[in-house]
Amino acid sequence: MSLGMRQRRLQTDPLPSWNEGPSKAAILRFLQEVTTEGGAAFVPPLDRVAVFDNDGTLWAEKPLYFQGSFALDRVKTLAAEHPEWQEQQPFRAVLEDDLESVFAGGMKAILDILVATHGGNTSEEFEQIVLDWIAGARHPETGRPYTEMVYQPMLELLGTLQTHGFRNYIASAGGIEFMRAWVEGVYGIPPEQVIGSSIETRFEIRDGKPVLVRLPQVDFVHDHEAKPVGIHKFIGRRPLLAFGNSDGDLQMLQWTAAGDGPRFLGLVHHTDAEREWAYDRESPVGRLDRALDEARAQGWTVVDMAREWRVVYPWEGSS
Amino acid sequence: MSLGMRQRRLQTDPLPSWNEGPSKAAILRFLQEVTTEGGAAFVPPLDRVAVFDNDGTLWAEKPLYFQGSFALDRVKTLAAEHPEWQEQQPFRAVLEDDLESVFAGGMKAILDILVATHGGNTSEEFEQIVLDWIAGARHPETGRPYTEMVYQPMLELLGTLQTHGFRNYIASAGGIEFMRAWVEGVYGIPPEQVIGSSIETRFEIRDGKPVLVRLPQVDFVHDHEAKPVGIHKFIGRRPLLAFGNSDGDLQMLQWTAAGDGPRFLGLVHHTDAEREWAYDRESPVGRLDRALDEARAQGWTVVDMAREWRVVYPWEGSS
Repeated sequence: MSLGMRQRRLQTDPLPSWNEGPSKAAILRFLQEVTTEGGAAFVPPLDRVAVFDNDGTLWAEKPLYFQGSFALDRVKTLAAEHPEWQEQQPFRAVLEDDLESVFAGGMKAILDILVATHGGNTSEEFEQIVLDWIAGARHPETGRPYTEMVYQPMLELLGTLQTHGFRNYIASAGGIEFMRAWVEGVYGIPPEQVIGSSIETRFEIRDGKPVLVRLPQVDFVHDHEAKPVGIHKFIGRRPLLAFGNSDGDLQMLQWTAAGDGPRFLGLVHHTDAEREWAYDRESPVGRLDRALDEARAQGWTVVDMAREWRVVYPWEGSS
Repeated sequence: MSLGMRQRRLQTDPLPSWNEGPSKAAILRFLQEVTTEGGAAFVPPLDRVAVFDNDGTLWAEKPLYFQGSFALDRVKTLAAEHPEWQEQQPFRAVLEDDLESVFAGGMKAILDILVATHGGNTSEEFEQIVLDWIAGARHPETGRPYTEMVYQPMLELLGTLQTHGFRNYIASAGGIEFMRAWVEGVYGIPPEQVIGSSIETRFEIRDGKPVLVRLPQVDFVHDHEAKPVGIHKFIGRRPLLAFGNSDGDLQMLQWTAAGDGPRFLGLVHHTDAEREWAYDRESPVGRLDRALDEARAQGWTVVDMAREWRVVYPWEGSS
């Protein structure tokens, strides 16, 4: 395609990286329904709220949740201050790059790593730590910065929703302060539209200056049943559109679907072993099983990544 | 003043219910500073966040926090379903209108009443309960609906901030779902810009329909040190302006003041025993003591209600 042709296509097609197919058609039909003034399904702009899972929905999540890679890298950075980690699990296994032993420690090992790497600093310090990490870290398989491992079709969907008067929220199990550090630049989603898991914080005056200290204690795990709870707490409105990719998003989709009038429910189905990864019912990361059954039973939109996405990553074709 | 004169004044003066004085001058000076493009203190619209306490700052709080009146009324409504309350404190005292005995029970009595009257329903049911109450209840001294016990000068400030590109948030110790039911209509503040105290909620499927059930358990008390914590959690940006009226707002003001560049810190000082109430250091409701000292030491704006507000309530002069 010539540059001129491509530009014309971009001007007329709001979703140029989506192949013509059932998902693209369903999105465009929905947008027309809820934004046509005078139409039976018209929704005023204030109520146009869209919620998106992040890991596996807006950016990739293999071979490991990217925030997991951040935590593992951070164990290595902090190891000099923690000589005891040389002998203490799960830290020793992390330092030896023995991920199998880390995961054998189950949820306890993961929480131990999480609080040791995410707490003990102020909110401002943590933001800088995340920014420094995300600027330098590279995906182990593609060698790309993690912020380039985002899905071009979903970026186009976020942009199209915005031009149709929607406010896009992230509703992720990822850390709220981890995401807020970089999502505005990457997705155009401002911090007040990010909902995620959190650790406890405490207000303190240090050297005469107020700070928020991040404690080594989990506050809120924003996944499964907790997603509608968090969405209701932060937004106070039922979303009009919800997009996820795993069983952790099922209740968010159910809660969205239960509203009056048309709602859009979407799942990214990772079917593309060549350009991305192919996984669903058996995957420990991003398992899609019950939600896939319910999506099919309810007629929700299931995006077949291999068939429906012309492009996966923004840099495809440019390198 | 003739109607014509009054209309001209409204057109040119964004704060017509504020007498010329130090508070009005400080507000207008601050707005000009942060919104003048090219000026040294210019702040882009995305960062123009204002936070307001509610009780005693946007609406009155005497003789009792209005949500307290809601809870007491609700004990009476629910008493038929709870015959045991005839003998059980603090409920018996409420049913006998013996507020002294209720308050003698301290925080435990208040929490008992709170969870008994605010939990045990779904979020949708609770919203309707609040809407029904606020439509019918009347203030015990003025006979006015509670939604008319709001401060006209503060409504004008909210409006002026909005026209200057600010997003106004409520950051109150009041219940988040109690406020969200009515604040959009009264203050023009949408639900996603309301932060408050909450009780635990749980996602459930009831008769095939997803609901959020309000449990009789406190989740988050959004007061004092917890205000900056809640503001940071919900907004993720430091406010540019904060307005409160009591010691419960001190940390929110400190947190706001600690940002770079100009910030506006305001306190409503209840000095008007004739038109409203006069109280500060000794008042159990809305105590203003430490925050008043700090405001004076730091040069924050302390609004002398009696001298600086030409009008207190929107209905003044109309009845």
